Amino acid sequence: MTKTKIALIQMKMSSEPKKNISHAINKIRLANKKGAKIICLPELFSSRYFCQNENHSNFNLAEKIPGPTTKLFSSLAKQLKIILMISLFEKKTAGIYHNTSILINEKGKIIGKYRKMHIPDDPQYYEKFYFTPGDLGFKSFKTSQGNVGTLICWDQWFPEAARLTALQGAEIIFYPTAIGWHPKEKKKFGKSQLESWTSIQRSHAIANGVYVAAVNRVGVEKQGSKKLEFWGNSIIFDPNGNILKKANTKESIIICEIDLKKIETTRRHWPFFRDRRIDSYKKILKNPIDG
Amino acid sequence: MTKTKIALIQMKMSSEPKKNISHAINKIRLANKKGAKIICLPELFSSRYFCQNENHSNFNLAEKIPGPTTKLFSSLAKQLKIILMISLFEKKTAGIYHNTSILINEKGKIIGKYRKMHIPDDPQYYEKFYFTPGDLGFKSFKTSQGNVGTLICWDQWFPEAARLTALQGAEIIFYPTAIGWHPKEKKKFGKSQLESWTSIQRSHAIANGVYVAAVNRVGVEKQGSKKLEFWGNSIIFDPNGNILKKANTKESIIICEIDLKKIETTRRHWPFFRDRRIDSYKKILKNPIDG
Repeated sequence: MTKTKIALIQMKMSSEPKKNISHAINKIRLANKKGAKIICLPELFSSRYFCQNENHSNFNLAEKIPGPTTKLFSSLAKQLKIILMISLFEKKTAGIYHNTSILINEKGKIIGKYRKMHIPDDPQYYEKFYFTPGDLGFKSFKTSQGNVGTLICWDQWFPEAARLTALQGAEIIFYPTAIGWHPKEKKKFGKSQLESWTSIQRSHAIANGVYVAAVNRVGVEKQGSKKLEFWGNSIIFDPNGNILKKANTKESIIICEIDLKKIETTRRHWPFFRDRRIDSYKKILKNPIDG
Repeated sequence: MTKTKIALIQMKMSSEPKKNISHAINKIRLANKKGAKIICLPELFSSRYFCQNENHSNFNLAEKIPGPTTKLFSSLAKQLKIILMISLFEKKTAGIYHNTSILINEKGKIIGKYRKMHIPDDPQYYEKFYFTPGDLGFKSFKTSQGNVGTLICWDQWFPEAARLTALQGAEIIFYPTAIGWHPKEKKKFGKSQLESWTSIQRSHAIANGVYVAAVNRVGVEKQGSKKLEFWGNSIIFDPNGNILKKANTKESIIICEIDLKKIETTRRHWPFFRDRRIDSYKKILKNPIDG
């Protein structure tokens, strides 16, 4: 098989994890009815984006892997015979928490785990307070529907992350995401920010000759005096960087048939992998020179 | 000073090097009159794009650096008190030729040399026949008008090249370029190819928080039964990836004031350099895993 169908669940989160989980399950069932074989949820879909504040009690949201949420989605994957990518707030041990994605195969087995490598910290995106940077490296996992690369949100701004994931063999790179506008910035910078976000992911498809699929949340989330408007715009690119499907700022499921053979064709015509100067890239392992 | 003016000379090449050089000089004088302080010419501007064929006599086009062409442009830079980036077919020694850019300062001195690191080879772009891959690494050079990064054409498809150039301190990355449509491919793939080319360069501005300026040639060049249509579309991006100026497919000079302070502002708001996982990028120095 070289063709498969992938789906991104762009959803709005309520303040109740139980509701979000059952909402996600309903959407997954819907996507499955439409033939999706690999389905990906947004980053930290089971809660509001709690990183808007630094609040110690939010660590209560974290859970072990495997744990109640992974068990639930494992049995769903098995029942529907689909592959699921699920984003979680992982508790590794007291004092070590990660922003983690797991990949569950159609038998309900967890076949992959990835811990977000690049952790942002920006006003209302206080992730460095919550998440220890990933310690598993960059990952691609073999599935019956192709090799799946697992990156998360902020990773999408780093060409190194996409490159390393593609070099591991990924044919489709998924980016569960939580990104939005600050109400004060939206008018002046909103359009440019969204375009940059789209462009950078497009570039990963082009540079690596892979499919790229990014799934974001939507809706305005208020926390005390703070507010973020998540911009949706979930998107799927082919290995040439052409947009295959794109959502707007509302809840939606985007489903897309992809053909993994296109990766071979693309890389024959744009043979970038052939010409990498691996003898000359060492300084990528260093920070900028002083000055 | 933090503000400067840069110009890209998008030009059409004739079959006579002397004509091309005097055409380029006229355009440089024009750009200078409009206030440009750094001016960049397209890749291998002094000739038609000879790599459409593998022809041993084309090596006669190569010259030493310094040589007659660099001397001419050095005295022009000194006369006009401007910085010039000039692309040349360099003869290093018998059997070793490079696709090279030099940077000349406003005193007429060559202050930088870069040899194209990534060499393409595609039907009608037989560069591997002519050019030994660069042996000087990735480069940024300090000038009175900011730090100038020097990459060339095919390098633009490699995020590693832009990253390494930015890590050296570049504030503006220039890409002298020769890219066009195969007449047979244009109808079906032309739009997508051009969009990918624009996107990948935009991504370098975003990922690195630098200005990016790419200058292409225009016109249809026939060589025997072969033909390429160079697509122009020279373009300048700000450090957020916004398009500042863009040419169409005709000859033109694009001139743009840029403010180097914007790099600091951009990197404060998009602190990607802060979060690079230099402990985990080692596999970038390897080719893809088997499979």
